[in-house]
Amino acid sequence: MKKLNIGLAGLGRLGKEYGKNIQFKIPNANLVAVCSLVEEELAYAKKELEVSDTYSNYESMLEHPNMDAVVIITSTDSHAEHIVKAMESGLHVFCEKPLSIDIENCLKVEEEAKKHSNLIVMIGFNRRYDPSYVDAKKTIIENKVGKPFFVRSQTVDKDIWAPFQVSFVKTSGGVFHDFNVHDVDLARWYIGSEVKRLWSQGGAYRFKEFGDLGDADNTFVFCEFEDGSMALLGASRTSSYGHDTFTEIIGTQGKLTVGNPPSKNRVQISDKHGVRNECNETFYDRFKDSFLIQVQDFVNSVLEGKQPECNLENATKATIVTCAMTESFKTKGIVEIKDIMP
Amino acid sequence: MKKLNIGLAGLGRLGKEYGKNIQFKIPNANLVAVCSLVEEELAYAKKELEVSDTYSNYESMLEHPNMDAVVIITSTDSHAEHIVKAMESGLHVFCEKPLSIDIENCLKVEEEAKKHSNLIVMIGFNRRYDPSYVDAKKTIIENKVGKPFFVRSQTVDKDIWAPFQVSFVKTSGGVFHDFNVHDVDLARWYIGSEVKRLWSQGGAYRFKEFGDLGDADNTFVFCEFEDGSMALLGASRTSSYGHDTFTEIIGTQGKLTVGNPPSKNRVQISDKHGVRNECNETFYDRFKDSFLIQVQDFVNSVLEGKQPECNLENATKATIVTCAMTESFKTKGIVEIKDIMP
Amino acid sequence: MKKLNIGLAGLGRLGKEYGKNIQFKIPNANLVAVCSLVEEELAYAKKELEVSDTYSNYESMLEHPNMDAVVIITSTDSHAEHIVKAMESGLHVFCEKPLSIDIENCLKVEEEAKKHSNLIVMIGFNRRYDPSYVDAKKTIIENKVGKPFFVRSQTVDKDIWAPFQVSFVKTSGGVFHDFNVHDVDLARWYIGSEVKRLWSQGGAYRFKEFGDLGDADNTFVFCEFEDGSMALLGASRTSSYGHDTFTEIIGTQGKLTVGNPPSKNRVQISDKHGVRNECNETFYDRFKDSFLIQVQDFVNSVLEGKQPECNLENATKATIVTCAMTESFKTKGIVEIKDIMP
Amino acid sequence: MKKLNIGLAGLGRLGKEYGKNIQFKIPNANLVAVCSLVEEELAYAKKELEVSDTYSNYESMLEHPNMDAVVIITSTDSHAEHIVKAMESGLHVFCEKPLSIDIENCLKVEEEAKKHSNLIVMIGFNRRYDPSYVDAKKTIIENKVGKPFFVRSQTVDKDIWAPFQVSFVKTSGGVFHDFNVHDVDLARWYIGSEVKRLWSQGGAYRFKEFGDLGDADNTFVFCEFEDGSMALLGASRTSSYGHDTFTEIIGTQGKLTVGNPPSKNRVQISDKHGVRNECNETFYDRFKDSFLIQVQDFVNSVLEGKQPECNLENATKATIVTCAMTESFKTKGIVEIKDIMP
Repeated sequence: MKKLNIGLAGLGRLGKEYGKNIQFKIPNANLVAVCSLVEEELAYAKKELEVSDTYSNYESMLEHPNMDAVVIITSTDSHAEHIVKAMESGLHVFCEKPLSIDIENCLKVEEEAKKHSNLIVMIGFNRRYDPSYVDAKKTIIENKVGKPFFVRSQTVDKDIWAPFQVSFVKTSGGVFHDFNVHDVDLARWYIGSEVKRLWSQGGAYRFKEFGDLGDADNTFVFCEFEDGSMALLGASRTSSYGHDTFTEIIGTQGKLTVGNPPSKNRVQISDKHGVRNECNETFYDRFKDSFLIQVQDFVNSVLEGKQPECNLENATKATIVTCAMTESFKTKGIVEIKDIMP
Repeated sequence: MKKLNIGLAGLGRLGKEYGKNIQFKIPNANLVAVCSLVEEELAYAKKELEVSDTYSNYESMLEHPNMDAVVIITSTDSHAEHIVKAMESGLHVFCEKPLSIDIENCLKVEEEAKKHSNLIVMIGFNRRYDPSYVDAKKTIIENKVGKPFFVRSQTVDKDIWAPFQVSFVKTSGGVFHDFNVHDVDLARWYIGSEVKRLWSQGGAYRFKEFGDLGDADNTFVFCEFEDGSMALLGASRTSSYGHDTFTEIIGTQGKLTVGNPPSKNRVQISDKHGVRNECNETFYDRFKDSFLIQVQDFVNSVLEGKQPECNLENATKATIVTCAMTESFKTKGIVEIKDIMP
Repeated sequence: MKKLNIGLAGLGRLGKEYGKNIQFKIPNANLVAVCSLVEEELAYAKKELEVSDTYSNYESMLEHPNMDAVVIITSTDSHAEHIVKAMESGLHVFCEKPLSIDIENCLKVEEEAKKHSNLIVMIGFNRRYDPSYVDAKKTIIENKVGKPFFVRSQTVDKDIWAPFQVSFVKTSGGVFHDFNVHDVDLARWYIGSEVKRLWSQGGAYRFKEFGDLGDADNTFVFCEFEDGSMALLGASRTSSYGHDTFTEIIGTQGKLTVGNPPSKNRVQISDKHGVRNECNETFYDRFKDSFLIQVQDFVNSVLEGKQPECNLENATKATIVTCAMTESFKTKGIVEIKDIMP
Repeated sequence: MKKLNIGLAGLGRLGKEYGKNIQFKIPNANLVAVCSLVEEELAYAKKELEVSDTYSNYESMLEHPNMDAVVIITSTDSHAEHIVKAMESGLHVFCEKPLSIDIENCLKVEEEAKKHSNLIVMIGFNRRYDPSYVDAKKTIIENKVGKPFFVRSQTVDKDIWAPFQVSFVKTSGGVFHDFNVHDVDLARWYIGSEVKRLWSQGGAYRFKEFGDLGDADNTFVFCEFEDGSMALLGASRTSSYGHDTFTEIIGTQGKLTVGNPPSKNRVQISDKHGVRNECNETFYDRFKDSFLIQVQDFVNSVLEGKQPECNLENATKATIVTCAMTESFKTKGIVEIKDIMP
């Protein structure tokens, strides 16, 4: 069996999960190198991920003699640069979403990629690999609910994480970039058209700190698509019941929902509170499987030389919309996509 | 419009509801008389039910000059006698279930009724009038789930009523007669065959008082039917979440459930307990509509001269099974229906 | 018992239901008169509703010597005039929603009503009487889900009615007036603030006929409230699964949903299509109970001399918003409420 | 990292899944050998499972110089013999359930195991590793639903597999051994007591072929436990909607259900059939994760020298009950466990 040798950049919480998946759950991949600025993370990788070659410097890792691809799970603001450097080193690239929160940066990476058309470059929109989202897409393709004309999609976090999120507002670019990039991607995927105009609303309804930073703890964005379809994309930091990623797709002949309710498992409890399902705590509880399937698809794509669906162009388009969302939230009116293009 | 003049015997909690239904919700019925041993109840009837003729004696009410039928909502042990007396007075009869908890008594009433074949005599198995149970029956008749071969049906009360129920164990004949007569009726109705053998189990798992009285707070009875079908019939006094009347019917081509979950309405709450439905408090919250539809059917049956489904024979058959259930619980083994017949 | 004598104007499908409720289900009301332009409807009322006094002319009915109040279930465009005439005759008024689809008309009726402050005038927003919607309101008042800041509410009809609806577009004023007046009312009720701005989108996605008439078969309207809350209000004529009135309320501490799924009853079917609930066919199947409770509240309000929640001012405010929705749909941009006020 | 070298016996459909899990998904295990009588399966193992040492003879594989443990996924009738031989070769053993359908055989293996107390011997009751079943157990241990006194558990297969199952009736020992061994195990696990008496019912309600073989297509068994608890254990080969493994646990303070409805994923479809969830096709779709977690636990148990919960004694007790179920089905009466012990 042909195997892909992978270097992993970034060993934070999600990076570690990627490391375990690559090293232990993907038959046709080896984790041959990791890099991190944190000494403990490199020690972890040596011991738990069984990686011999560890680096505290990204560029050094790129010179690894026996590496085919890099997986980039570093902070958002370094994604674009890390992708370009990897391509320049002749390496295939998988990078966590978003590509960048700056449209020009996105376009520059796309431009650079054209010089390396032999390389596979994939951006991680993991929900497209979640079995339920895949099944919904299949149901639409089979025309079982007619032509989709409305998508509601939301990313809702349990309120216990809000205090941590406050400190990330500035680096993450705010709630639209941080929460809605997946929802934008799903809406584009299911509707099959591009966003034309949108109007963002929201506020710091519970945690005033977000308002002080010009951000929000709950938002909804109403979108018009080129083909006349509609979407409502929501984000929340204040759910008392758990992580609630929910998507609804209305077509001319029926409706699909994904994730209602956001139960953590198949147990239902009947007690003095009624009949109830407890819910997922985090996005990773909900999407664990999809992260594995996604990296498996990246590995297969490289080994088979096929371009994945989640390519750079797709990532750029999502960022364009999250930029427009952010702009609309600031200006309190409808923003046209064409008006924010550089 | 031809109207039926009705006298009501019994003005307890359920009797009052019957009174309101007859007087105010049934277009073709008048409540012309009531009787009760309790002075306050008669005063209530005069004022709230707008009945001029009130009686403290059942036999006196039967002599009312302008009465076509009686509705008997008195205590179980007087049902048989009250029915017979009403028939002797030439009156049509609706009586709450059960007919009697004594098989011989049931058979005597049946015998007496043969002398009054012109009279309509109906026993109140209200679940047969619940829109959901009716819909389930229709679905079976339309052969959408094939031939039913298993029914699970249960009557489950919220635990807050258990302290009151302790004092009724002796007069009600115990949990099988009191809780399961409806479940027996539903199982017979959906399966379309008669119980042949059964095995009762149970105990006083939470409220030891019931055990001291030879009764139980939770029971299940496993039944074999003449045609080889099966049923599990349950009763509980210990539900923490609410009144839970649930019925499941498995057929050769599909399955039906009625009442899962036992939500009190269409509101779902998402909070720190998860995603949940609050439940019904009492059987009346669940079956309110069916009580009205049932009495309406009685009135229509009398006015149109048609025999209702819930006749004396049907009621006797249910009592035979609840007697067998009680016997099996005492003897701790399988009881054959034919062995307990008088 | 003091009883209210009521005259009913309009004997269409819904009018007949009002008639039955008033005559047979409301203890403290009598239906003493009806009026209709259709001979068969008056015959129906005599025979089935047991009303002796029938009129083919509204004004004549108002002169009935023994009438305390009128219930107006006529076509929308006559509501305002009928209300005013009834008030001038010294009669209490219940009128089906909407008050009018013209804001000036609404305000004129309000003005006129000030001259008759002794009269009760109620507009039928029946959803406020639906037990589930009432329970949701109670849950909010008890602060169990915190401060509501988002409402999604929608009125969705089964697709089989669309062909009939085409012919009503012109008289009904279009989908926003016809479908969303209840959703506007619910959003205002739960949020406790007024709509400030809104943006309507939609189209004739399945039935092109609506597009030819300047109307739509599916719409969503995104609203901003004075207090910074948000709402998404939807309408659909194309549901394949049934009538789906659904409302979601998100608060700072939790979420409520009403009507998910829109099951017609408590039966669940497991067959080759999966595990499924069949759905309501029409709004009346869903809201039957609320229509009765609503008229009962009107009768009680008049007899007790208390003003109902669903008064003229409330109705005017709903119409203002449905006018703004219609305007936004035409102009394809955000409409401010203050800009459309006469 | 210390790693366990495993040999796999049996490469049928489930055996292959075990092979993939061991080789590719368990960090601390290597699949070093496989054996099968089928040439194609050995070729598959070489190519897809990357195993160099393949055997067509079980005994030969046991002599592999570098093997710590065997995983036995062969036919039921060879389990006991294969386990004993592995122990005699000094190897740790994981074997698929059931240990044997013959009680004496089970006891002989237990006897033999006493001579090899240094070896870990685990029987695969995978449902104990399913995250939902684990969560239910945790909820009970935390006393959130009080003391469990009733378990309903069932194994229900989609009807499309019935034609295949007919040919396995003789070797599998019939529906109770084949379907209910897991349900027996779960009931014992949750109730924490042993079955004392039971009564089996059932029939060939849809597929007469099973009746001709003395077997059934649908069965229910009503069990009494030593501590007075109850269970209803069901099996079905005729589900039209999918694989439906469902377990309900009633305690003195609440109720748990696992697997209701048996949805295949988080997608809900609203179309002309209503609002519905499609269901799992096979037990493997439902329990895929648990098979991996289970083998991981076996590997960890061996490496850490700890005895797993799913030991031989546990397996013997499950077989005793499935033997009693089979006996009761034949004799059509209550069977006492003590009466069938050898």
